[in-house]
Amino acid sequence: MKVGVIGATGYTGRELLRLLRGHPEAETVFLGSGANAGRDLRDIYPGLTGDWPPLTAAEPPPLDVLFCALPSGKAAERAARFLAAGSKVIDLSADFRLRDPGEYEIWYGFAHPAPGLLAEAVYGLPEFYRPEIAAARLVANPGCYPTAALMALRPLLRVGLLEPASIIIDAASGVSGAGRALAADYLFPEINENFKPYGVASHRHTPEIEQELSLAAGRELKVSFTPHLLPVSRGILATIYARPRPGAGEADLRQCWEEAYADEYFVVILPPDVWPQTKFAAACNFVFLQLKLDKRTGRVVIVAAIDNLVRGAAGQAVQNMNLMFGCPERLGLEHRGLWP
Amino acid sequence: MKVGVIGATGYTGRELLRLLRGHPEAETVFLGSGANAGRDLRDIYPGLTGDWPPLTAAEPPPLDVLFCALPSGKAAERAARFLAAGSKVIDLSADFRLRDPGEYEIWYGFAHPAPGLLAEAVYGLPEFYRPEIAAARLVANPGCYPTAALMALRPLLRVGLLEPASIIIDAASGVSGAGRALAADYLFPEINENFKPYGVASHRHTPEIEQELSLAAGRELKVSFTPHLLPVSRGILATIYARPRPGAGEADLRQCWEEAYADEYFVVILPPDVWPQTKFAAACNFVFLQLKLDKRTGRVVIVAAIDNLVRGAAGQAVQNMNLMFGCPERLGLEHRGLWP
Amino acid sequence: MKVGVIGATGYTGRELLRLLRGHPEAETVFLGSGANAGRDLRDIYPGLTGDWPPLTAAEPPPLDVLFCALPSGKAAERAARFLAAGSKVIDLSADFRLRDPGEYEIWYGFAHPAPGLLAEAVYGLPEFYRPEIAAARLVANPGCYPTAALMALRPLLRVGLLEPASIIIDAASGVSGAGRALAADYLFPEINENFKPYGVASHRHTPEIEQELSLAAGRELKVSFTPHLLPVSRGILATIYARPRPGAGEADLRQCWEEAYADEYFVVILPPDVWPQTKFAAACNFVFLQLKLDKRTGRVVIVAAIDNLVRGAAGQAVQNMNLMFGCPERLGLEHRGLWP
Amino acid sequence: MKVGVIGATGYTGRELLRLLRGHPEAETVFLGSGANAGRDLRDIYPGLTGDWPPLTAAEPPPLDVLFCALPSGKAAERAARFLAAGSKVIDLSADFRLRDPGEYEIWYGFAHPAPGLLAEAVYGLPEFYRPEIAAARLVANPGCYPTAALMALRPLLRVGLLEPASIIIDAASGVSGAGRALAADYLFPEINENFKPYGVASHRHTPEIEQELSLAAGRELKVSFTPHLLPVSRGILATIYARPRPGAGEADLRQCWEEAYADEYFVVILPPDVWPQTKFAAACNFVFLQLKLDKRTGRVVIVAAIDNLVRGAAGQAVQNMNLMFGCPERLGLEHRGLWP
Repeated sequence: MKVGVIGATGYTGRELLRLLRGHPEAETVFLGSGANAGRDLRDIYPGLTGDWPPLTAAEPPPLDVLFCALPSGKAAERAARFLAAGSKVIDLSADFRLRDPGEYEIWYGFAHPAPGLLAEAVYGLPEFYRPEIAAARLVANPGCYPTAALMALRPLLRVGLLEPASIIIDAASGVSGAGRALAADYLFPEINENFKPYGVASHRHTPEIEQELSLAAGRELKVSFTPHLLPVSRGILATIYARPRPGAGEADLRQCWEEAYADEYFVVILPPDVWPQTKFAAACNFVFLQLKLDKRTGRVVIVAAIDNLVRGAAGQAVQNMNLMFGCPERLGLEHRGLWP
Repeated sequence: MKVGVIGATGYTGRELLRLLRGHPEAETVFLGSGANAGRDLRDIYPGLTGDWPPLTAAEPPPLDVLFCALPSGKAAERAARFLAAGSKVIDLSADFRLRDPGEYEIWYGFAHPAPGLLAEAVYGLPEFYRPEIAAARLVANPGCYPTAALMALRPLLRVGLLEPASIIIDAASGVSGAGRALAADYLFPEINENFKPYGVASHRHTPEIEQELSLAAGRELKVSFTPHLLPVSRGILATIYARPRPGAGEADLRQCWEEAYADEYFVVILPPDVWPQTKFAAACNFVFLQLKLDKRTGRVVIVAAIDNLVRGAAGQAVQNMNLMFGCPERLGLEHRGLWP
Repeated sequence: MKVGVIGATGYTGRELLRLLRGHPEAETVFLGSGANAGRDLRDIYPGLTGDWPPLTAAEPPPLDVLFCALPSGKAAERAARFLAAGSKVIDLSADFRLRDPGEYEIWYGFAHPAPGLLAEAVYGLPEFYRPEIAAARLVANPGCYPTAALMALRPLLRVGLLEPASIIIDAASGVSGAGRALAADYLFPEINENFKPYGVASHRHTPEIEQELSLAAGRELKVSFTPHLLPVSRGILATIYARPRPGAGEADLRQCWEEAYADEYFVVILPPDVWPQTKFAAACNFVFLQLKLDKRTGRVVIVAAIDNLVRGAAGQAVQNMNLMFGCPERLGLEHRGLWP
Repeated sequence: MKVGVIGATGYTGRELLRLLRGHPEAETVFLGSGANAGRDLRDIYPGLTGDWPPLTAAEPPPLDVLFCALPSGKAAERAARFLAAGSKVIDLSADFRLRDPGEYEIWYGFAHPAPGLLAEAVYGLPEFYRPEIAAARLVANPGCYPTAALMALRPLLRVGLLEPASIIIDAASGVSGAGRALAADYLFPEINENFKPYGVASHRHTPEIEQELSLAAGRELKVSFTPHLLPVSRGILATIYARPRPGAGEADLRQCWEEAYADEYFVVILPPDVWPQTKFAAACNFVFLQLKLDKRTGRVVIVAAIDNLVRGAAGQAVQNMNLMFGCPERLGLEHRGLWP
């Protein structure tokens, strides 16, 4: 496959390049960059040794697939052009994740420039949309927080094991999730030895989580979602609280997961009492899950951990590419997590 | 005041020494240590410059006050002896925090060796037990997580603004909260660039939180409490979810806080939309609070931040000492938080 | 003393405010800020609780002393005006540290706007310029790296114990040394889990170190100086290599230090084999020193550690203020280092 | 190739398993562990998903190659047995790195139990001992600090470009270099936000560096070597000072490197003024180099960066395995460095 990456020098683009270099069937032939056009990729990222195409602000030629790693709001128009030119597109922004164009005005503050494509776009969560992804021309790669939350909750809601109105998602992310844009809040001394919530009751991943959980539950639901910023570069941990359906016990919940994920290479349901840590998933595409029913309160506590740049972005995008082109789903993604 | 510190070389003991050295009315005349008896304090902590009493495993003489910074389960017997010998005691373990001796068997796994003292001990949360602390012979210094949770919730529950059964406390702590004991889990490479929950639905601070919230609410309540371990040395952040009483709005909640804390030097209710960060409280005794009512879900999100070693341990102990000896409550504790 | 801080919202200015708030004789009555004029200090730094003067871009009134915490190159002109208006000035930039105006053109790239003041300015390293500081109208507060290097080397060079041409200073600093200015290099993900040299053979602190070491040695000397950036917020460690004068042994070097610093409150010569760590000095004004003669190579290894924002900037500035106004030198600076 | 790892649950062993799982020609069939015998590898490292042999304290069967990742002093006897049983051995301890048995008594404090093997063991620095490694039965995998120092210095000394007596190596390592053994010094709160030297003028890697540099220079030399501990998990940076031979300029030094490493896949000589950062090498087997001649002092400053667990241990061991078994040298090691 001949592939291109648009937005190649952001953290997500850079992670895509790392993964694509190790992919036996992908050849990266185009690197799009607005801010760094004309520079040499290795000047920006000396760790990306070897030869690379030039960084360019030019339009890409038609390729087998274009990964679009632009900020949300800047991807839709360009992706539409790429599709029209004949490339398949895997978009890593939020621009094609929401089905309802109105949601973009509410949560993102812009009128969607290509609403017609929202119906065509496939939500690229492979474990749940595998056939649709395989047939797609345009894949909306899920957000990092949504990936963690949905992998934990979707199977349980699909079979009605949780009360839909009871879901609280308390999550924390490494700073790479904010991208490489300059902002004082992300300077090292502001983040180091610190921990803070942000986007309380207003984060843009909320409607994405709600859309996909509502589809799973078969009814509209709302969630409480509070993201926090961790003093780490990578990793997402979601700690989720919910009430099980009356009569449902811990074994039922666990069995639901085990059935849903029995054949899933990238999903690890940990043994009882082993709780996910973000570092289990460091630099790999695996999802780590655990749950426990607290009999004192009647709530189940569910925890999911992923690497936000791999499973939460670039790795999942490659997984989607594999599906779209008939490669083994795990191709180029089999490496295990780093420790320490 | 002539004071002694038992368990002087743990992190909490060390922090007490730092604060006591800066306290104009306290003279540290006794340093108790089992593991490091016979060593020089400055060999262990070169940053504690100046002269110090020798580290000794001997019994302390009667002093104005003894700070007991021993692990939970090891403090009760010794504290009873110190009291009998005529010293006032501020105990920083959990050994005198719970009123019901039976709870020690359930949560801590031991029969309390001095149950008679539980009735006498005063829970040392100054903003809520000021007169009792002033008159106390034995103060049970609150736990770090409970301090954060109670400062956020106690005023709201006291006036019935929250549904008692709705409370979920998702919290995160720096590693110093685990003390200086050796365990592979606390090695740098295991914690660095990592984040994880622990003690899920089983942490020992749960009954302490529930006891004090139940007393505030005037009825028994249970909470969901999930602690997490942050890759930082200091700091606690508690993110709390609850349902307000029907009809109660965000302004009611905020006004309740403002009235409860109007004259409290150490409590900072942040301006709207400024959320607490652990680093606001770095190395100081202040508590930082914020809340927001999420109209979409009907839940209020409440966040509290403290330094676990200062307000969550040694600083609050000094605050209690000030109350017990008629000093201005803020004496020796007025320094502001470090940044960065 | 009525004091003002110009550049109040940078990290150095912020640290000055923290220290001045705890100083019993200083009242902070003026806060100058270009970028944040009109804002409330507590909006920027919520940890600085209590009341503060407004942030303003206006000229300060004449005060007992003005701390000028502006970037190098922006301080000289303003400081000259403050002096003319009748305030004493402690300048924390490099603008008055070098005696030779020509050096500013070589190392800083600008023609010094007030060369006449260079002769009057006193280099504010208290242990070596105490009487001059006490009498000064204008103090040039030393740089962070120079402070560490000079405290280690000045006494030894003054008595001729080291070969002047043999000195290599390999040093590392926390990121707060770079200030709060926006630059991609200082984003958390670029610094975290990373370590790198910078300014190799070209750092601007080189001529400052050489000037003061040359004065101590009584002859011109050059040093190799390589700074590195640590993934920490605070702290400087300098590891220094030099050849002792023929015949000089480790005991001679140590004795020289002990005599030079016998009465110095802020200097800690550690016991043999205890090596300085940046954290010994965390948030305090002390300097930690150690040395060892390596008989295999004939070189002495000397290590110094300070907190770059306290002893390397704001704390030393307050120490200088104390000297200028006849206060006890340690007033407001007696707090010991944080751990952990 | 059928391979085994002895000491499989230390950090180096764990890293070997990660790399071997991604190696297309290696099958890990034996996991030796004393401390964790009988446990399941995935209980210790949940990130190592998939199936693994049991952890056992039993002797390994004869295999194509055994990686011995035991602490120094514990490997020699066992390795001798493995060799006798017919396996090739790649030993990652120091037990076969020094040619002179007497050095073990001086630096490591033990009499070498298998001195006869020291002559047979090949020092496993592939770029310099490629044919010897290919023919070896026993490879002594280099230490982490030596790898960084030797890759920087060996070519330059071999052609006489540096004065042998002038070399100073100031280096810093991530904490994983200390292994996973319990020690208070390596607890998170002791390392975090801290930086310190250790083993000053006494570190055990000194004779290893000196042996290999002396061989390169063709004469005995001594170096000053000071390691430091960084608050990072991985990475080594060596900053080296030396005097060039009279007449040798920066271009000569650079050209020497370029010739020595012209065909070396794993060596990256950075463009002028781009200095190595430990993170360039994160989780990859590449070495990053830079140098600059400081005309003011006449010294050259040389910097090398590697990942201590990959190129400084497990990755280099796999590189050696590839050579020993006729595989392409880069097989299983082509992945690029992580960022961020």
